[in-house]
Amino acid sequence: MCGIIGIVGTTEVASALYDGLTVLQHRGQDAAGIATVDGARLRLHKDNGLVRDVFNQSAMNRLRGRVGIGHCRYPTAGSEGATEAQPLYVNSPYGIAIVHNGNLVNTETLRREMFEDDRRHINTDSDSEVLLNVLAHELQIQDRMALTPDHIFKAVAGVHARARGGYACLALLLGYGLLAFRDPNGIRPLVLGERISSEGREYALASESVALDILGFKRLRDVAPGEAVFITNDGQLHTRLCAEGAVHAPCIFEYVYLARPDSMIENVSVYKARLRMGQKLAEKILRERPDHGIDAVIPIPDTARTAASALAEMLGVPFREGFVKNRYIGRTFIMPGQGERVKSVRRKLNPVELEFRKKNVLLVDDSIVRGTTSRQIIQMARDAGAKNVYFASAAPPVRYPNVYGIDMPAASELVAAGHSEKEVEKMLGADWLIYQDLKDLIWAVQDGNESIKHFDTSCFSGEYITGLDQHYLEQIEMLRSDDAKAARRSA
Amino acid sequence: MCGIIGIVGTTEVASALYDGLTVLQHRGQDAAGIATVDGARLRLHKDNGLVRDVFNQSAMNRLRGRVGIGHCRYPTAGSEGATEAQPLYVNSPYGIAIVHNGNLVNTETLRREMFEDDRRHINTDSDSEVLLNVLAHELQIQDRMALTPDHIFKAVAGVHARARGGYACLALLLGYGLLAFRDPNGIRPLVLGERISSEGREYALASESVALDILGFKRLRDVAPGEAVFITNDGQLHTRLCAEGAVHAPCIFEYVYLARPDSMIENVSVYKARLRMGQKLAEKILRERPDHGIDAVIPIPDTARTAASALAEMLGVPFREGFVKNRYIGRTFIMPGQGERVKSVRRKLNPVELEFRKKNVLLVDDSIVRGTTSRQIIQMARDAGAKNVYFASAAPPVRYPNVYGIDMPAASELVAAGHSEKEVEKMLGADWLIYQDLKDLIWAVQDGNESIKHFDTSCFSGEYITGLDQHYLEQIEMLRSDDAKAARRSA
Amino acid sequence: MCGIIGIVGTTEVASALYDGLTVLQHRGQDAAGIATVDGARLRLHKDNGLVRDVFNQSAMNRLRGRVGIGHCRYPTAGSEGATEAQPLYVNSPYGIAIVHNGNLVNTETLRREMFEDDRRHINTDSDSEVLLNVLAHELQIQDRMALTPDHIFKAVAGVHARARGGYACLALLLGYGLLAFRDPNGIRPLVLGERISSEGREYALASESVALDILGFKRLRDVAPGEAVFITNDGQLHTRLCAEGAVHAPCIFEYVYLARPDSMIENVSVYKARLRMGQKLAEKILRERPDHGIDAVIPIPDTARTAASALAEMLGVPFREGFVKNRYIGRTFIMPGQGERVKSVRRKLNPVELEFRKKNVLLVDDSIVRGTTSRQIIQMARDAGAKNVYFASAAPPVRYPNVYGIDMPAASELVAAGHSEKEVEKMLGADWLIYQDLKDLIWAVQDGNESIKHFDTSCFSGEYITGLDQHYLEQIEMLRSDDAKAARRSA
Amino acid sequence: MCGIIGIVGTTEVASALYDGLTVLQHRGQDAAGIATVDGARLRLHKDNGLVRDVFNQSAMNRLRGRVGIGHCRYPTAGSEGATEAQPLYVNSPYGIAIVHNGNLVNTETLRREMFEDDRRHINTDSDSEVLLNVLAHELQIQDRMALTPDHIFKAVAGVHARARGGYACLALLLGYGLLAFRDPNGIRPLVLGERISSEGREYALASESVALDILGFKRLRDVAPGEAVFITNDGQLHTRLCAEGAVHAPCIFEYVYLARPDSMIENVSVYKARLRMGQKLAEKILRERPDHGIDAVIPIPDTARTAASALAEMLGVPFREGFVKNRYIGRTFIMPGQGERVKSVRRKLNPVELEFRKKNVLLVDDSIVRGTTSRQIIQMARDAGAKNVYFASAAPPVRYPNVYGIDMPAASELVAAGHSEKEVEKMLGADWLIYQDLKDLIWAVQDGNESIKHFDTSCFSGEYITGLDQHYLEQIEMLRSDDAKAARRSA
Repeated sequence: MCGIIGIVGTTEVASALYDGLTVLQHRGQDAAGIATVDGARLRLHKDNGLVRDVFNQSAMNRLRGRVGIGHCRYPTAGSEGATEAQPLYVNSPYGIAIVHNGNLVNTETLRREMFEDDRRHINTDSDSEVLLNVLAHELQIQDRMALTPDHIFKAVAGVHARARGGYACLALLLGYGLLAFRDPNGIRPLVLGERISSEGREYALASESVALDILGFKRLRDVAPGEAVFITNDGQLHTRLCAEGAVHAPCIFEYVYLARPDSMIENVSVYKARLRMGQKLAEKILRERPDHGIDAVIPIPDTARTAASALAEMLGVPFREGFVKNRYIGRTFIMPGQGERVKSVRRKLNPVELEFRKKNVLLVDDSIVRGTTSRQIIQMARDAGAKNVYFASAAPPVRYPNVYGIDMPAASELVAAGHSEKEVEKMLGADWLIYQDLKDLIWAVQDGNESIKHFDTSCFSGEYITGLDQHYLEQIEMLRSDDAKAARRSA
Repeated sequence: MCGIIGIVGTTEVASALYDGLTVLQHRGQDAAGIATVDGARLRLHKDNGLVRDVFNQSAMNRLRGRVGIGHCRYPTAGSEGATEAQPLYVNSPYGIAIVHNGNLVNTETLRREMFEDDRRHINTDSDSEVLLNVLAHELQIQDRMALTPDHIFKAVAGVHARARGGYACLALLLGYGLLAFRDPNGIRPLVLGERISSEGREYALASESVALDILGFKRLRDVAPGEAVFITNDGQLHTRLCAEGAVHAPCIFEYVYLARPDSMIENVSVYKARLRMGQKLAEKILRERPDHGIDAVIPIPDTARTAASALAEMLGVPFREGFVKNRYIGRTFIMPGQGERVKSVRRKLNPVELEFRKKNVLLVDDSIVRGTTSRQIIQMARDAGAKNVYFASAAPPVRYPNVYGIDMPAASELVAAGHSEKEVEKMLGADWLIYQDLKDLIWAVQDGNESIKHFDTSCFSGEYITGLDQHYLEQIEMLRSDDAKAARRSA
Repeated sequence: MCGIIGIVGTTEVASALYDGLTVLQHRGQDAAGIATVDGARLRLHKDNGLVRDVFNQSAMNRLRGRVGIGHCRYPTAGSEGATEAQPLYVNSPYGIAIVHNGNLVNTETLRREMFEDDRRHINTDSDSEVLLNVLAHELQIQDRMALTPDHIFKAVAGVHARARGGYACLALLLGYGLLAFRDPNGIRPLVLGERISSEGREYALASESVALDILGFKRLRDVAPGEAVFITNDGQLHTRLCAEGAVHAPCIFEYVYLARPDSMIENVSVYKARLRMGQKLAEKILRERPDHGIDAVIPIPDTARTAASALAEMLGVPFREGFVKNRYIGRTFIMPGQGERVKSVRRKLNPVELEFRKKNVLLVDDSIVRGTTSRQIIQMARDAGAKNVYFASAAPPVRYPNVYGIDMPAASELVAAGHSEKEVEKMLGADWLIYQDLKDLIWAVQDGNESIKHFDTSCFSGEYITGLDQHYLEQIEMLRSDDAKAARRSA
Repeated sequence: MCGIIGIVGTTEVASALYDGLTVLQHRGQDAAGIATVDGARLRLHKDNGLVRDVFNQSAMNRLRGRVGIGHCRYPTAGSEGATEAQPLYVNSPYGIAIVHNGNLVNTETLRREMFEDDRRHINTDSDSEVLLNVLAHELQIQDRMALTPDHIFKAVAGVHARARGGYACLALLLGYGLLAFRDPNGIRPLVLGERISSEGREYALASESVALDILGFKRLRDVAPGEAVFITNDGQLHTRLCAEGAVHAPCIFEYVYLARPDSMIENVSVYKARLRMGQKLAEKILRERPDHGIDAVIPIPDTARTAASALAEMLGVPFREGFVKNRYIGRTFIMPGQGERVKSVRRKLNPVELEFRKKNVLLVDDSIVRGTTSRQIIQMARDAGAKNVYFASAAPPVRYPNVYGIDMPAASELVAAGHSEKEVEKMLGADWLIYQDLKDLIWAVQDGNESIKHFDTSCFSGEYITGLDQHYLEQIEMLRSDDAKAARRSA
C-alpha cells in the first residue's frame, strides 16, 4: 500500500503536497518523497521514514515549483531501500518522475522485454521502476516533434496493453505537465479534485479524498478505470479513456481496513460502509444466536471501532473500549523474528481489566490475517477475567494473497488458508468466532453506490480479475514468507 | 506533566524502563531519559525527543544495571533545553539522580536559600533541579558515618518541610538504593508494584499503573501522601510516612484528561470515572432539555470518546465518530504564533461530512481550555452542514492556572476566566454549551473510591491546597503567556 | 578539480576505491562517491563531504562488486549540491555511471542539442551530466544487437567529435565493463596500472599515480590523449585511439599546484619538477640581484616548500619554515564574503616570529592568484619584524581564467590580470616580487620528459588549445565572481 | 595530552575560545568542549570529535558570556567517553567547571579519600574529575561568608598538598571568576597573555602561546610552577605562589614532539629548540662517522622536518621530502588491532621513489616510541631502492612510560625498553641508527633559556620528579597495553 498525491497549482505546491502526504500516511509509513517542477528542473527529495522525519525546512525550500507529486510507501517485497523510495525518475525521454500505488503481476516479463527490446536498465526489484520505464518507452516511440495530449494518451494506452495488475499512477512529464492514470479494472483508487484560487483553477489527484479535504480541494470524481488525466503545466485538463471493456472491480479491502473512515471512494463513504459491516454482523449474530448473552462489545482499536459501535448499537449491548492502544511503541532492542512478534501485542494493546472481569465479551476486529494477534488478544481478554470470549471479524476469512498492492503475508501464513471457520475458531482459542459473509461485506459497500457491480475480493475468494501467470502465486509465496524477508534484510 | 518510573530488579532493567516510558509517553513527549546504577557508576542517557528517538542500541547497551529510573517530560516554563531533561544528577553527597513529576510553588525562596545557606549552584530554571538540591542538602546534613533508612527518611521529612507544591519523585542514591516520595497532599500520582522473578522479588514505582501492567508487575498500592519508600539495591523495602496531617487531595485533572484510561489511580479506574462523567453529563442534559432533539453524539478524539459513548448510550442517541484524528501530523513550515494555531486544528481533525449534514449534533470534549480549538471545531461542524451544534465539556469551566505540574496557559488565555458559561457559549459560537458541574465531576471520580474526601480542583475552583505566595500567580501569568514562550524560544 | 579512480578487480573493490579516493582527496574535498557493479545492479553511494565522512560501514557493505568507480569533487559552478555529486547515472541505454574530471567549453550547445535531438533531460548545471548524456546518446545509436568494444570505441569517437574541453572520464557500462577516455589534447591526467592478484590480472585507472601506489598497482602508462581504454567485466583490456591529430598539451598547473608531489604525470615526477622550479627561480634571483642579501628563504606551506628548499639550497641561504599551517581550521561563525576571507589567513598560518625579526626574508609561494592571501602574508612578515620582505612565485603571473576544470576566480579577481609585475609588487606591498618566467616553468616540467612539446598554459598565456566560443569567457566571468557564488548559495 | 584555554574578556568569548582550540587541536583530537559564564548560568557544550565537528552555530549561540574555558582532549586511559569530555562541572560549592591538562599519580588514594571523607561521588575513571572534586572540597572548607582571592589561593594550596603529578588547570568559579594553576614542578605548560580592547583589559591563559598569538593576545609570561592566577569576572588579576620549594622541571617532550613549532614555552622557541636538536644530531654524526656518505636527509613528516632541515644544512647534504603525508586518511573498515597498525603506515606516508633510488638516505624522526612505524618506514625506503638506510632520532631512546599526561604505550611496548641502541638498530632493520644524547637534547632546549635547570625527562631517564607509589607503574602497564584498550572499547 502506498499513498500518492499530485497537484497542478497556481502557486508553490511543496507544503500542500507535504500536508497531503501526512493525511495519506496511514497508507505507508516506510518512506516518503516529493518531486516538483522548478522551471526546467526536477526537484526531488525522498528518504526512508515518516513524512515528518523525511522533510526539513531546507529540503522544503529546494522543492520549488507549482506542479508536483508526492508518495508515501508501505514496504513490499523488493522496495525496502531508500533508493527505491518514490518518486522515481528517468531522464530519457523528456525527464519523467513517477509515483505509484499498486502492484503489477507480469513484472518479470516486462523486465525482460525492457532490457532486450529497449535496452533500459532496471536497477531495483521495484515494479514501480518497471512501470516507469514502460511509460518512458511508450512515450519515446511517439512522434518526437511535439508531445501533444494525444501522444500522451496513446502512450498510456500502450502501458495498459503491456502492464497487468492494479495501479494508480501520477507522473510528471518535464516541460509538459502532470499525467494520472489508473488500471483498466480500477482496482486501486484515485480521486480528482479542484480548487479555485485567486490566481485561477488548480487541480489535485490523490489516493483518498481526505487529502483533498485537508487542502481545501473540492472532490470532483474518481478517475475512471483505464482513464488517463493529463493536466498541462498551465492548468489545462485533458482526459481520455485509454482502455476499454474491462470490468470495474475496486479493491474491497480499502473499505475494510486500508482507507481512512473519512474518505469517499467510488462515491461510497468508508465510514458508513463500516457501520453497515457492523450492522450485518449484528444481524448474523442475532440470526445464529438470538440468546447470545453478550455483556459488552469491545473493538480492537483503531479500525474496528466503527463497525463495533454499530454492532453494539444494533445488539443493544454496551460498547466498551476495553483495549487501549499504545501510541508510542518503541523498539524492541533484541529482535528474534516471529518470537518477538508474539510478545509485541502486549506492547501495543493494554486491557482495561474491569471491562472484562466476569463478562461475556464480543471482541471485534476488521479482519483476521495471520491470526497471531487475534489469538493473543483473546488470551489477554481471558487473563483479564472474561467469562466467555467471542470474536467477530468484519471481513470474511482471508485465505488468498493479495497481488494488487496490499502487502499481505504468504498464503501459508494466513490462519484461514485451508481451514474451516470452525478450525480457525479453535486455533484462535475463541469461544465463538463470527466471520462476516462475503455477500454481506459486498452489500455493505455496494449499498453506498449501486452502480458498482463487481469488487476485487481476491483475498477472500481467490478470484483474480486480471488473471495470473501460472507460477506467480508460488513466487509470491516465496518472496513474502518471513524467512525470505529476514534473508533480504540481512543481505 | 511528566511520567516517571523506577525499578529495583534482579536483572538488567534498562529495557523495562524503556518499555515503561513508552506507555507513560502520553504524559510528556518533549524529552526522555534513563539513569541506571552500574556498580559504583551512574549511567545516564537523556535527550530531547520521544522515547523511541532518544534511545538507540548503543545507548541502551551502556545503561547497565539492576536499579534505575526513567523520565519523560512535558515542556514547562524553564525546562525546554536538553540539559534540563531528566534524570538530573549531583555528585555530592553520595551521587544522587532524580526524576520528578510535579511543580513546586516556592521555588524562588528555595533557590535563594540554596545558594545563600548551602552554596549549591542551581544552573537552570527547572524546579526539579531545586528539589534535587534540597534533597541533596538534607542528606548532606545527616550523620555521615552510615546512611541508614532512618537517615534517609529524616532527609525526606526535611524536604517536605521546605518544599511546597505537588511532586512525585524517584531518586537513585548511589551505593544505597532507590528512594520514592510523594508530596504531603498526594497531588501527583505514584504507584508501587512488585514482581516475583526467578531471582527474587522486584519492585517498580511509576506515575501510572499501566506502566506496571505492561511490565508484568502487580499493582500493590499507591504511595501514600507524604510517604517515602526506600528500596535498597539488594531489594529490601522500607517505608515511612514523612509528613503528617496534610489533606489528601489528588489532582482531579488526571481523571479528566491526563491519565490513560486503562490506569488505576488511587484505586479508581480512570476509564470508569470517565464513563461516569458522561453519565452525569447526560443527566444534566436530560434535566435541562428533556426534548434536546440531538441526532448524534460526536466525541472530539481521543480522550472524550469514553465519556461521549456513555453519554450517547444514556441519551439513547447514536454515537458517531464524526471527526477523524490525523495521527501523522507534520510540521508547519512557517510558524506565526497564534495565527498558526488557529489553522492547525484542520490539520489535526477531519470531519466525516455525512455524519453532520442536516443533523443536530452534540460534540463532546474532555474540557475547554483556551477555547480556540473548540471554536474551530464548532465551525467545522457547521461547515459540514450541521443544523445545530451543541457542545459538552466533561469538566467544569477552567478558570484558574494549574500550579502543580500541568502546563496550562496563563489565566488571561483561558476562555472561561472571568466569563460566564453563557458568555463562553457565545465566544465559541455554540448553539448550546453544557459544562459538567464540579460536584458531578467530583462524584464521578469519588464513586470509585469513597475514602477520598478531597481533590485538587484548583483550575476549576481557584482554591490551592498548598497555599500560594502573594505574587506567585502573577509570575505564572508572565511565564506562561504565548509571548513569554516565544521570547524564550528565540533566546 | 576532481579526483577519479576506477578498478576492474578479481575480488571486492569498494575498500580499494575508498582508499584510493583518500589519496586523491587533495583534488577535491567537497563531495565524494563510489559506484560498483553488483551482478545486474549498480550500487551507488555519494554525498557532500570528505571521503571519510561520506562512507560508513553500512554504506561500504552495500557497495558490493568487483568493478567500480569513485570520485571526489572540488566545487565548481553549478555542481554544489549533493545530487550533483558523482558518479552520475542514466538507465538508458544499458545503465551507465560516470565520473569526470575536467570541464567542457561547449556545454550550452550540447545541452540544447541533447534536448532537441535526443529528448534527454539534463537536470543540473553540471557539465558532467551533459557529458554522460552525450556518451549515452552515442552508445544508443550504435547497433543494438551486441555491444562490442568496436561499438564502444565508435561511441567515444562520437563524444570526442561533439565535446570540447578538458576531460578525463571513467564510465561503468552495466553488463559490459569499465570505459576510460581522455580528451584529445590530453589536458587532464589519467594513468593506467595493473596488479597481479592470486585470482588473476586487475586494472586500475586514476587521476594520479599515487592512488595506484597506495593500492599496490604498478603504473603502466598514462592513457594517451584521445585514447579510450575498455576493460570488460572479466578483465579483458581493449584500447583504441579515438581522436587523432590533436596537439598533446597537458595542464602545466598540475605540476605547479594541483598534483601531489609523489605523483608521476606524463612520466614527469611532480616533486622533481617543483625542485627545478625552485632552481630556475634561484637562477633568476642571482641573475637579477647577485647581492640579494636574503637571510632566510621561507615557504608558504605546503605546496611551495619543495621549490623553496631547492631555491634556498641553490642560493646557499638558510631554509626556514617561518609559517606554521593550522591543520584544524574551524568554521567562522559569521561569514561576510570577502571581508571574512581577508581575516582568515591569520587562522590558517601563524608566523614563527624569531625567524623574521630584523631579517631580509624571501617568501616563496607556488603561485599568486587573487593576491589577497599574499598581501596579508607579506604584512604578517612585516608585523613579525622582517627588515625586507621579498616574495617569489614559482609560477608566472596568473592573468586568465582556467576553463578546463580548475576552479579559478573570474579574471576580474586575478590580481595580475591587466597589471604589470611592478604594479602587482606594489599591490601586494612586497619589497621585491619575483615571478617565474613562463619558459622556465615549461623547462622545469619538460626536463622530465622531453617528448612533451606543448602544455596547456592558458591561465598564464591566455591561449586556449581547444578554442573558445565568443562569449564563453564572459559567461565564466559572471558565474565565478564572488557575487554570483553568494547568490547561488543563498538560492 | 590535552589543550586548554581560558579567557576573561570584555565582550563575548565563545568564538575566541573556539578559534583558540583549533590551534591547540594538535594536543588532542578526541573530544572538545567549551563552558562560559552567562550571568548566573554556566553554559556548557562538549562532545567527542574535532573542534570543527563538535560545535555548530546553535551550540555557539548558547555559549553566551564574557568569561569561559575550553578543552581539547587526547584519549587516555579512562577518558574515552563523551561524558568524560571536558569541561567537567560540579554544582557544589558555588558551581565549578574545570579543564585540565596533565595527569595525577595518586588518583587512587584521592578517590578513596574523596568518598570516605567528603562523600563526593566520582563517576568516571578520569583523574580530572578527581582533581575537580579535590578543588571543590578545598573551596568548600573555606569560610563560606565571602570567597576572597585569599580563600581561593588557600584552596589551591590545599590542592597542591593533596594532588601529585603534572597538571595545568583552568577553573570557572561561578559568581567569582577564572582560576588558573599549575603543578608545583611546572611540568605541564600554561601561559598568560593580555589584550587591550576598546572596553578594557582582557586576559587569556592557554597551554601554548600560539593560541594567544592567533587571538591577538600579547604573551606576558608563563604561569610559574605552583602559582595560582585568579582573574575576577570584572577583570581584576590576582596571583600567588601556592606551593614552594619544588624543583622547576618542565616536560622536555613538549619541545621534542608535543608543542607546535611556533609556540614559546618557558621563553624557549620550540622551533629554534628543534633546529638545535638537528644541529646536535649533525655534530654527533660528523663525530662518529666523518665519512658518512649520506646522499640525502629525509624527514618523517611533519614534526621532524625542522630538526632534519638543520641537520641537512649542517652536514651540507641535500634536504629532500622523500615521504608525502596523506592528510585525508580514512577509516579502515575492518580493524584487527596491532595487525592493522602495521599496515596503516602505508596509508599515512607515500615515498617519492626517485628520492631513494640508489642513494644513502638518512631518515630523521622526532623520536622512536613503539618502533613499528619506524621499521615499516625503513622497509619502505629499501623498497623504493635506497642503497643504505640510516635512521636518526632527535630524542634519546624512549624506555619508560610517561605519567604526567602524555599517552605513551606501556613500557613493554616501547621498542627501546630493556634494549641497547645496537639491539634497537637491528630490530628496526636500519643500517645505522643514531639517537640524540640526552645531554644534547637538554642543551638544545636549555640554550633558549638558561635559567631552567631541570627538565622532566622521565621517559628517557626513568626518573620521576614527583616520586611514584610502589605499584603505580605496574598499573599503568596494565591500563595502557593494547589488550587493555581493546577490552575497554568493546565494553
